[in-house]
Amino acid sequence: MARQRPDALVTVPSELAGRFPVTDVSPTNLGGRLPATAAVGERIPIRATAFREGHDSMGLTVLLHRPDGSLAESARMRSEGNGLDTWIAEVRPDQVGDWSFTLEAWDSPWDTWLYRAGIKIPAGVDVELEFTEGALLLTQAADDLGSSPEQAAVLRAAAHTLTSTALPTPVRLAAATDPAVLTLLHADPIRAGVTTSGPWPLRVQRRRALVGSWYEFFPRSEGAMLDPPRSGTLATAAERLPAIADMAFDVVYLPPIHPIGEINRKGTNNTLTPGPHDPGCPWAVGSAAGGHDTIHPDLGSLADFDAFVARATSLGLEIALDLALQAAPDHPWVSEHPEWFTRRADGSIAYAENPPKKYQDIYPLNFDHDPEGLYHEVERVVRFWMARGVRIFRVDNPHTKPLWVWERLLSSIYATDPDVLFLAEAFTRPPMMKALAQVGFQQSYTYFTWRNSAEEIRAYASELAGPAAAYMRPNFFVNTPDILPEYLQQSGPAGFAIRATLAATLSPTYGVYSGFELYEHVALRPGSEEYLDSEKYQYRPRDWDVARGQGRSLAPYLTQLNEWRREHPALQDLRSLRFHHSENPNVVAFSKSDGADTILVTCTVDPDREQEATVWWDMAALGLQPNERFVARDLVTGSTWTWSARTFVRLSPSEQVAHIVHLQRT
Amino acid sequence: MARQRPDALVTVPSELAGRFPVTDVSPTNLGGRLPATAAVGERIPIRATAFREGHDSMGLTVLLHRPDGSLAESARMRSEGNGLDTWIAEVRPDQVGDWSFTLEAWDSPWDTWLYRAGIKIPAGVDVELEFTEGALLLTQAADDLGSSPEQAAVLRAAAHTLTSTALPTPVRLAAATDPAVLTLLHADPIRAGVTTSGPWPLRVQRRRALVGSWYEFFPRSEGAMLDPPRSGTLATAAERLPAIADMAFDVVYLPPIHPIGEINRKGTNNTLTPGPHDPGCPWAVGSAAGGHDTIHPDLGSLADFDAFVARATSLGLEIALDLALQAAPDHPWVSEHPEWFTRRADGSIAYAENPPKKYQDIYPLNFDHDPEGLYHEVERVVRFWMARGVRIFRVDNPHTKPLWVWERLLSSIYATDPDVLFLAEAFTRPPMMKALAQVGFQQSYTYFTWRNSAEEIRAYASELAGPAAAYMRPNFFVNTPDILPEYLQQSGPAGFAIRATLAATLSPTYGVYSGFELYEHVALRPGSEEYLDSEKYQYRPRDWDVARGQGRSLAPYLTQLNEWRREHPALQDLRSLRFHHSENPNVVAFSKSDGADTILVTCTVDPDREQEATVWWDMAALGLQPNERFVARDLVTGSTWTWSARTFVRLSPSEQVAHIVHLQRT
Repeated sequence: MARQRPDALVTVPSELAGRFPVTDVSPTNLGGRLPATAAVGERIPIRATAFREGHDSMGLTVLLHRPDGSLAESARMRSEGNGLDTWIAEVRPDQVGDWSFTLEAWDSPWDTWLYRAGIKIPAGVDVELEFTEGALLLTQAADDLGSSPEQAAVLRAAAHTLTSTALPTPVRLAAATDPAVLTLLHADPIRAGVTTSGPWPLRVQRRRALVGSWYEFFPRSEGAMLDPPRSGTLATAAERLPAIADMAFDVVYLPPIHPIGEINRKGTNNTLTPGPHDPGCPWAVGSAAGGHDTIHPDLGSLADFDAFVARATSLGLEIALDLALQAAPDHPWVSEHPEWFTRRADGSIAYAENPPKKYQDIYPLNFDHDPEGLYHEVERVVRFWMARGVRIFRVDNPHTKPLWVWERLLSSIYATDPDVLFLAEAFTRPPMMKALAQVGFQQSYTYFTWRNSAEEIRAYASELAGPAAAYMRPNFFVNTPDILPEYLQQSGPAGFAIRATLAATLSPTYGVYSGFELYEHVALRPGSEEYLDSEKYQYRPRDWDVARGQGRSLAPYLTQLNEWRREHPALQDLRSLRFHHSENPNVVAFSKSDGADTILVTCTVDPDREQEATVWWDMAALGLQPNERFVARDLVTGSTWTWSARTFVRLSPSEQVAHIVHLQRT
Repeated sequence: MARQRPDALVTVPSELAGRFPVTDVSPTNLGGRLPATAAVGERIPIRATAFREGHDSMGLTVLLHRPDGSLAESARMRSEGNGLDTWIAEVRPDQVGDWSFTLEAWDSPWDTWLYRAGIKIPAGVDVELEFTEGALLLTQAADDLGSSPEQAAVLRAAAHTLTSTALPTPVRLAAATDPAVLTLLHADPIRAGVTTSGPWPLRVQRRRALVGSWYEFFPRSEGAMLDPPRSGTLATAAERLPAIADMAFDVVYLPPIHPIGEINRKGTNNTLTPGPHDPGCPWAVGSAAGGHDTIHPDLGSLADFDAFVARATSLGLEIALDLALQAAPDHPWVSEHPEWFTRRADGSIAYAENPPKKYQDIYPLNFDHDPEGLYHEVERVVRFWMARGVRIFRVDNPHTKPLWVWERLLSSIYATDPDVLFLAEAFTRPPMMKALAQVGFQQSYTYFTWRNSAEEIRAYASELAGPAAAYMRPNFFVNTPDILPEYLQQSGPAGFAIRATLAATLSPTYGVYSGFELYEHVALRPGSEEYLDSEKYQYRPRDWDVARGQGRSLAPYLTQLNEWRREHPALQDLRSLRFHHSENPNVVAFSKSDGADTILVTCTVDPDREQEATVWWDMAALGLQPNERFVARDLVTGSTWTWSARTFVRLSPSEQVAHIVHLQRT
């Protein structure tokens, strides 16, 4: 085994060393050891716990710095008023790169005076002394504003009023709380004992890292024949792209398009006895025809791939390619680099196995014998496809490779090509899923497919939009070639609409695997999440137009969801997600917002029965007054209603599974 | 203002950089920025999250290093088996100093083989290949054990059996799981890809930092006369020490013993109109007679103080002195160092105030004008008393001084005198309370006095014994001169017994302020936590013996509690605290243990009515089998019972408020 990083110690910002303690800063990743994550244009809430000795007032400022070190934004933080000394402000980075933010905590003598004088002067205590000290502070602030004579004059005039003993006391005190004075001193406060916390690193990536609607399909199925079986090609698959673009998807994700092993090839439904025409599983990568840098001859040539990418690009679609780091027994790596695999005592190479089951069509890679050699081959493969226009990789089973491989690969690619994105298929335990995100995966599959009840959805989505958002971006796939969720096996079309609604509105990035829109739902056997006649082992040509013509397609609704996602910044946001109280445990209610755009969603999770619910919107969280009424326009039906904090909804599997409402502020 | 530490960046261990990720290590303080806390002889659970790619096995070892860097202990960690990849082991440092621990995570090929072969060989899959590889591993382990030929021979013999094809398969496989083989390979495992996490700093302090029974009293009250009022002295107060020692207390804490200001002195019950004999409040420190390095003339001289300390020491009692960093208007600091205070615009020095209320007997210190000068004076005062034998300071209102003062002072004192302890009177919001502990206070007052229901007690004590134990040690005072809890105002003597039981058994360190044992419970007014005729403003001589003779004293029970605390290591432990399920919400049930010593406590929180409860002990947590029976000896009554997982208890205010049970293992 090899590769212990020599730098077992790293440098991070200190937390309690300054004049004013600042702790629990977020978003941070591994306590500042690695950068927190952000996307261009994303509204990032910056939070910290900051406090001081005694009873005087303090203030906090967050400074957002661009990759070149210049100041992009400075925002005064607000106390959250929860008795826990937490502060918050929002920033919005606007370009790709390694940004940072710094917090400044400071003594605020003006706020201290305002509080003290505001109590003592009306009570007749130390009246002249307090006015004198207030005037001194205003004069000091005016001096500090030397570059702006008009503003300084406002403060000097107030100072004069404060000390004008001929005026009535209330008039003098009012001069201190004049909005013009307060605004000036809020924007440009008197600060003392300024304490810096940071810099805290913040990696800003392109918008697609955060936002996107993904569509997965097997190119070999598009244009395939069944009798006898014959593969579709990249050229025939490209004919499917306009329809995907019409559905307003952004990313087309292709399972591996490389040669497929012939040794120990799997037959239909994962059997060990393939027929002569069975195409095998695309994840059994490699054959005499080539390995990870080769196009399957059935699909075409590299030139066909280039044409496919070009067609997608012209339609506004991005291609995501699968990166499945494993080999079929006939992959060229096996003969050329047997040291990249595990050799058994009998000289054979170890298959993948889950004792006593063996997966004889796949050899796992072993990074411990030749870590440098194998690593460089992996990076070479990635850069090979990058050079052909691939800027997104969906990484198969990343948790079966050492974490350092990803940390190194993602850092190396980021250094030259910060626009390249990696999605981790991290279906594993929480610590590894978290770590893969922390070391650089821009997106991760999640447990969404197994979160079905309203309470499960609330708890899990809150976790993802909360602390986890500092380092991980979810991609909510509703199904995958490996996962036909039990819910969809039972739910009928209403369940597909429910799951699509939840995925598309809860997460800025979501995806469907083709066939979902046709309500495909038959499992290999009861209790299994495998599809019957899985496309992993055979061609599955589909007649999209007939299904749509017969009304047997969810495509029109998916199209609407994707269009709403493009129109509404709120639906592109993760961190503003907030759940609201629904009196019916089968109805989930949540909101998201970005700037002035706010979307309220109420969705049933019951695909079988009508559900009615009274929903209580947290008006303060929506920036509304408790008794305010607002116009709610349902994107689904186009209806508008006047809603208030208490809203009654009725949702029905046969008519409408969700209200997706645009809050229209008056 | 001043003092921004230049080193805004600190160095900490990295977390995800090695061959095997190790994260969420505990106990740590501020992510490794500052040392976690421990005491001599304390059993410290070391936890981490560690995981690896794929399905092979891994192992974890914790190495505990002494201050000189030598290895004190090496322990193999156990998986907690919760699906979250957490591991645990316990270590026990045995001397004062700055220790550290390091974790090693490694590939465990033997465990991988055991799991795989244990399934495949009985299933008849790859039988000879698996036996061959098992034998190779055993031979490798034998080679590694070269220094111990007998042990190596055991492994070689097992390897031989594995490959003896003439033997029946079950016999061959059994050789691999022979206890002697497993024990050897557990103690000295085959390790590959060893990844180091750390060193994580661990500051080990003397036992008193963790464990102690505190008794607070005003020396001026002992031997005082009331008519006319006349102060007791250190000499008369020393006569109280034997009784305190007889009650088996460990620490005697004295409110300030310095001269008390005469300007704006407070009268009885905090009035502004003192009589000529009113002694004033000891926290209004300083007069023409001297300041923080002076003994109040009424109490005696420095020689009297020395005699007092000597008397206490001879009785096995330690003295804790109050450190109240503030000044009466006539404190010498005020005239000699006006720059250490806040000067108002009219030239006056700022009183303490909580607008519109003013506390004209006290000037707060201001560390921002002459931070170096004032800091050095504070350290001088502390070292002055240290030189006179004081090794414990109870710090008054530490949250009203800048945090850096404590970080610097405690570091400086620790560097020369690691036995000196500081208790923070941190009655403030959670972040400051936490930060004071994190920067070095060895103990902290807590919110215990305001946690009365069983659920409040469970939640709060679990927090203190859990994550917070990494940096903070609680001192559970049942009352203080400032806090007569509302519960005690209402509860009658049973409530005093309940609160003493909870404090003395939940926390390794607890305290009472004198008068508690006499059930003093009359508040200044309804809704106030101030004592009527508070000892802060007047002498309160008490006739201890008469009260005891008339049975109006809790002293006998306090004595028992303190003796049990000395006899039972379990009661001296914090981190093993675990709550068990009680079916009655008015009865709390918990256990603590240290090594073989286990104490189970069931205590009512209802001082008014009898309560019955069925308690369900978590047998696994107690190291017992689910259906095991055990002998329970009640320390309170001396009775012994046979208990099992389900235990019925009846607790009564008039007879017995708690069972404090020693679990006798068979």
